[in-house]
Amino acid sequence: MPVITLDELRKKYASEKAEILKDYFQFLRFQSIATDPAFKTEVSACADWLMSYLQKIGLKVEMWPTQGAPTLFATHKHTDKKASTLLIYCHYDVQPVDPLNLWTTPPFEPTIREGNVFARGAVDDKGQCFYTIAALKALLEHNKLNCNLKFLIEGEEESGSRGLFGLLKQKKAELKADHVLIVDSGLQQAGKPAITLGVRGICTMSVTLKGSHFDLHSGVHGGIVYNPNRALCELLASLHDDNGRVTIPGFYDAVKPLSPQEKEELNFSFDLKQLQTHFGAAAIGMERGFTPLEAAWLRPTIEYNGISGGYAGAGFKTVIPALATAKVSCRLVPGQDPETIAQLVKKYLITKTPNGIAIDVTILPGGGKCVRSSPHSKIAQVMAQAYTEVFGQPCAKILTGGSIPIAADLAETSGGEILFVGVYLPEDQIHAPNEHFSLDRFEQGYLTIYRGLELLGND
Amino acid sequence: MPVITLDELRKKYASEKAEILKDYFQFLRFQSIATDPAFKTEVSACADWLMSYLQKIGLKVEMWPTQGAPTLFATHKHTDKKASTLLIYCHYDVQPVDPLNLWTTPPFEPTIREGNVFARGAVDDKGQCFYTIAALKALLEHNKLNCNLKFLIEGEEESGSRGLFGLLKQKKAELKADHVLIVDSGLQQAGKPAITLGVRGICTMSVTLKGSHFDLHSGVHGGIVYNPNRALCELLASLHDDNGRVTIPGFYDAVKPLSPQEKEELNFSFDLKQLQTHFGAAAIGMERGFTPLEAAWLRPTIEYNGISGGYAGAGFKTVIPALATAKVSCRLVPGQDPETIAQLVKKYLITKTPNGIAIDVTILPGGGKCVRSSPHSKIAQVMAQAYTEVFGQPCAKILTGGSIPIAADLAETSGGEILFVGVYLPEDQIHAPNEHFSLDRFEQGYLTIYRGLELLGND
Repeated sequence: MPVITLDELRKKYASEKAEILKDYFQFLRFQSIATDPAFKTEVSACADWLMSYLQKIGLKVEMWPTQGAPTLFATHKHTDKKASTLLIYCHYDVQPVDPLNLWTTPPFEPTIREGNVFARGAVDDKGQCFYTIAALKALLEHNKLNCNLKFLIEGEEESGSRGLFGLLKQKKAELKADHVLIVDSGLQQAGKPAITLGVRGICTMSVTLKGSHFDLHSGVHGGIVYNPNRALCELLASLHDDNGRVTIPGFYDAVKPLSPQEKEELNFSFDLKQLQTHFGAAAIGMERGFTPLEAAWLRPTIEYNGISGGYAGAGFKTVIPALATAKVSCRLVPGQDPETIAQLVKKYLITKTPNGIAIDVTILPGGGKCVRSSPHSKIAQVMAQAYTEVFGQPCAKILTGGSIPIAADLAETSGGEILFVGVYLPEDQIHAPNEHFSLDRFEQGYLTIYRGLELLGND
Repeated sequence: MPVITLDELRKKYASEKAEILKDYFQFLRFQSIATDPAFKTEVSACADWLMSYLQKIGLKVEMWPTQGAPTLFATHKHTDKKASTLLIYCHYDVQPVDPLNLWTTPPFEPTIREGNVFARGAVDDKGQCFYTIAALKALLEHNKLNCNLKFLIEGEEESGSRGLFGLLKQKKAELKADHVLIVDSGLQQAGKPAITLGVRGICTMSVTLKGSHFDLHSGVHGGIVYNPNRALCELLASLHDDNGRVTIPGFYDAVKPLSPQEKEELNFSFDLKQLQTHFGAAAIGMERGFTPLEAAWLRPTIEYNGISGGYAGAGFKTVIPALATAKVSCRLVPGQDPETIAQLVKKYLITKTPNGIAIDVTILPGGGKCVRSSPHSKIAQVMAQAYTEVFGQPCAKILTGGSIPIAADLAETSGGEILFVGVYLPEDQIHAPNEHFSLDRFEQGYLTIYRGLELLGND
């Protein structure tokens, strides 16, 4: 069968673009915020719509119920019994939208401004999911899907994939694959193609210090009791030394460093200026001796994602709060086990808390291991080639400091070689107000998936 | 004129108690939360009711408007031109009521349970204000008010007395007095009478650290940027050394220690067990070398009354927040100037903030100097005697670690000797949900004010 050229595919996309965007926008309009029970009906409606859409393009679709949002499992069998099997992963749930007042246009009314679609989920992950669907539709129309396809679209990625974690054992046979493609990743810079060879792992916990039954008067008791806010600050401040290293005993023990060859394959160049101009931030948080991307990709971290104690709003309340709370997360690298690290942190925090202050450390569900994959796998090679062709630039190999908690277990369950792809950029404001996706990159994503899958089947 | 005995006064109170409580409860029903503009009408209605009530008991009353809640100024002239002048201070505004769900009965529907009145303001300061009014009424009825009376009841104590601060200069002549009695203080333990010879001063500030334009992804940027929550914790943790001393250069420089004689007059005994059983707190926050009440009365402190940054609610949000905020206050002792100390703290915080993190320290209005008064003044002596008679126990001399910001300036403006009195107890939950006042102590307050003022006039 003759392979159509990229130019022909671009023309096809141009002629169908209006239709593709219409359907994409319909997908974006569902308020599929799975973490919030108030949106249960919307999440369910989104899954139903998606199931029917996948059936219409020619896939066989199962809906796997979970205690939360359902997971969709769409398949397409190749006629050649020797064809390899590709498992694609995306998700249809989105992050909450607060603070709503910072959105220029409503988050569930997709709006185009200056070539960008503004909506919650425009990129993460409905946008990346939908160009994948559009590419699959084109491949099926051209009879170019030369592998067995398993397409897994879950509905709880943003809240820890609890439902899907629960399904992995039970669906081991269904999920068996040779290649796993996670379409939920991105690029470092516009126009510079890259495949992502790994994500960091994560574990999260909630820490609460209690100093009294109720808030105390900061005059009457100030100087006598130990303010839980002070205890929390001292506790968290003790977790880094002057070199920015985590002080918790054993924290780095299991870390497996990258080999020089592995390191050489990755592109560590980092845009300090973009960090300053777009994010207003400075690269001053690295552990001493590491460059920005070495720190974000190769080193574990501990972050205080939230702190709260007493009254910090407008005006002033002269209390010593009864409670002080922190939400703490660690990003993990190869060798580190989420549960082990969470227990180390918990133990250390408990040891360092002053007598007379009660501490509770609750390790939260939804942790996941780090993933590293080979740049030499079949899936990595075909996707790198597809990126190179579509972008007209050599394809870099990168990692991300982010986490996809289900990825490690999904790779293990499927038995396949895993790769992370996508075309989002750091400035797309995913998870934040005014999330947006450029229509040009949407098309690049579509072209890359089409071309990569076409190449994968050309064995 | 024959002095009526305390027993006769108790009988009079018993016969009039129902009427007194009826009026007290009416006073409590006004939602006089002056700090919140939503309650402006209620604050104003409360002032009107109070003005009319004071007129009914025989006082001449002026209402002094301010930009916020009005101040009431009630007077009574003695026929003897040589009579001394007493200025009494109370306030009719109350603290906000949140969290409302922790109240057993609604905060503005006074309810009696087990001999206690539960209501916002039951003690602070409507309760103490109202037994003072009832005692004045009785004194006037018996023709026993043997001094010139100036009764100042302000409406913004809980939000920094801004209106009254603005009036002091303009009303200097009106406020001239020989004795100043602040009826907004309390006892250390039930049944143990005490006069309060001083309050600590206070200054407050709001501290904000900014690391980026908006919240960042803790995976993608974690390890590269400096988390403002981490910077805030490290900054605040650096303000105390291992001995619990404040590390800010110059913080203690102006502190004037108590003389051994002054110290000997005070009762420093502290109920560790009550701190544990009632408040659930331990006395572990003292600067090394100081007992609990030495720390609360004689030493300055720095407290973090509120901290906030990122998301600390239910669930988890993997952000590095753009901002982290703290509300910081210092309690001050003799020699320390609120503005000077606030500037020292501000300067130190700015110096210690990492480059690349922006800091804003805003010194808030409503600070006030420490006050110390003599136990040998006329007003201290008559009130100590009144307490001793009413409680049948020797009257202790104490300080409080709390602050009444207007007190120092009021003493200076009036030119009088100042004393703090009252009968609240630490366990009355003032400022907290379920504030309550025992009816027995309400009566003791009434008797003490009556007897003290009677003695003051008996020169």
